[in-house]
Amino acid sequence: MNLALKEKLATYQKRVERGIEQLLPTASTRPERLHAAMRYSMEAGGKRIRPVLMIAASELFPSQADPLAAAVAIECLHTYTLIHDDLPSIDDSDLRRGRPSCHMQFDQATAVLAGDSLLTYAFQLLAGNYAQQPSLATGLIHDLATASSSERLIGGQMEDIDNEGKPIDAETLRYIHENKTGALLTAALTMGLRFCAPTIEQLQQIEAVGYHLGLTFQIVDDILDATSNAEELGKPVGNDSASDKSTYVALHGIDGAHREAKKHTAAALKNAEALGGNNAFLLDLIADLEHRIN
Amino acid sequence: MNLALKEKLATYQKRVERGIEQLLPTASTRPERLHAAMRYSMEAGGKRIRPVLMIAASELFPSQADPLAAAVAIECLHTYTLIHDDLPSIDDSDLRRGRPSCHMQFDQATAVLAGDSLLTYAFQLLAGNYAQQPSLATGLIHDLATASSSERLIGGQMEDIDNEGKPIDAETLRYIHENKTGALLTAALTMGLRFCAPTIEQLQQIEAVGYHLGLTFQIVDDILDATSNAEELGKPVGNDSASDKSTYVALHGIDGAHREAKKHTAAALKNAEALGGNNAFLLDLIADLEHRIN
Repeated sequence: MNLALKEKLATYQKRVERGIEQLLPTASTRPERLHAAMRYSMEAGGKRIRPVLMIAASELFPSQADPLAAAVAIECLHTYTLIHDDLPSIDDSDLRRGRPSCHMQFDQATAVLAGDSLLTYAFQLLAGNYAQQPSLATGLIHDLATASSSERLIGGQMEDIDNEGKPIDAETLRYIHENKTGALLTAALTMGLRFCAPTIEQLQQIEAVGYHLGLTFQIVDDILDATSNAEELGKPVGNDSASDKSTYVALHGIDGAHREAKKHTAAALKNAEALGGNNAFLLDLIADLEHRIN
Repeated sequence: MNLALKEKLATYQKRVERGIEQLLPTASTRPERLHAAMRYSMEAGGKRIRPVLMIAASELFPSQADPLAAAVAIECLHTYTLIHDDLPSIDDSDLRRGRPSCHMQFDQATAVLAGDSLLTYAFQLLAGNYAQQPSLATGLIHDLATASSSERLIGGQMEDIDNEGKPIDAETLRYIHENKTGALLTAALTMGLRFCAPTIEQLQQIEAVGYHLGLTFQIVDDILDATSNAEELGKPVGNDSASDKSTYVALHGIDGAHREAKKHTAAALKNAEALGGNNAFLLDLIADLEHRIN
């Protein structure tokens, strides 16, 4: 990543961190254990890719409101999925972002409820902060709920679990990744663009960006899992192959996976260029995601 | 319950059942296991108290839209809380409404994800079905998200867990019940009334109805747990005292609990009468909830 992009990205990430700090209930809110767990997982750092993408998309054209509450909402949604995925009955991960996962730091009951709380809070933030622009609020909630539904994000996670230890075909792998990862990344972009009162065509165009970006993101995840060490990644590596999880690397090999990532990055860039507007930062982000190292 | 009320209630319940049948993804939607679990828990019967209360409230004054999708949404929300509460790491209940609970019928991972899915679907239904009336949609979503948040419904559940096996004072018991049970029952009423484009004062008045109704409901729950048998109740009884759970009966005795239920029913009726409008069915429902047997 070049220095200018690195500094710009850090500025956006800090804005998101401040939004999380300000918009979430304090850790001393009753019941304290629950709110401490919500903040523990939300403040664990991470790259804040979804909120940053959302803000970048909201800046493509003149915006009708501050997207920060929506950016925090999508990070709440993403964080809930991590908390529940880490549970012993699902992926059974003890480590997340280099720290004990939520159920290890607190306990399983608290982790289930903290995840439920963050999921709920995402919608509370949207309905509460954009009540004066109810069409915007309804559009944002529609995008977020649809992307994270049983037919998209949760559906992808379910099929991932169902296919553990089984031979997998390319179509099923595609289904899992389009939904488990791609749906929410796409929602980050469509939700951001909604702040610019977009046309249907513009929304479809940014959906195409999200589709290809989501696939790139997941392919790179699979490559990193196969080639990184735990310290770089902040979570256990080789987890996927250890439990016979289906990955792009398993299906296409490392070189094939890199080729796929390159292809989808090019397609995402092409659509983002066609969208026009103030797209320099978004183009830089897309190009960079192919080369991330954690 | 008198025959006229019984028949009227059955009509409303059938309308809710049809709404669930029509508005939820079919059990054969991919991934099938997940959608089968969602429908399994949603179609387990139950009294449909929250959606019926919502429809009754929507009929107090002329309504601006069909409340059925919102009624199904609140039942999705309620059902997700039952699925997650039954998990081994929370209440560890094998039985729900006379059938194996969701994680017993499927497995824990599916139950976590089916709960997440129903919670998400509640908001998807609201944003999707009332998109043409975005102020109504935003109000409904605000009420539902706030009532089911970490400071209300989930907060009540968390404090309930935290106080298991400990001596409990009346204030903590009140906190648990106001939030774990009362918040969503109150939301059923405020959401229903939102269909009538209410004034702030009317919303506050129906909130007072919900507050007292919620307390009555929980007190009666505690009485039934102490006095019923499992067949009548469709779930294990004596569960609360077995795990030293805090109940009205433990704190006030059976007679004291009955007196409390009577007092709060009277207060709910008084507020519902003051609200006026087409309130005969709502008054009947409130009066009857004190005397329910399961």
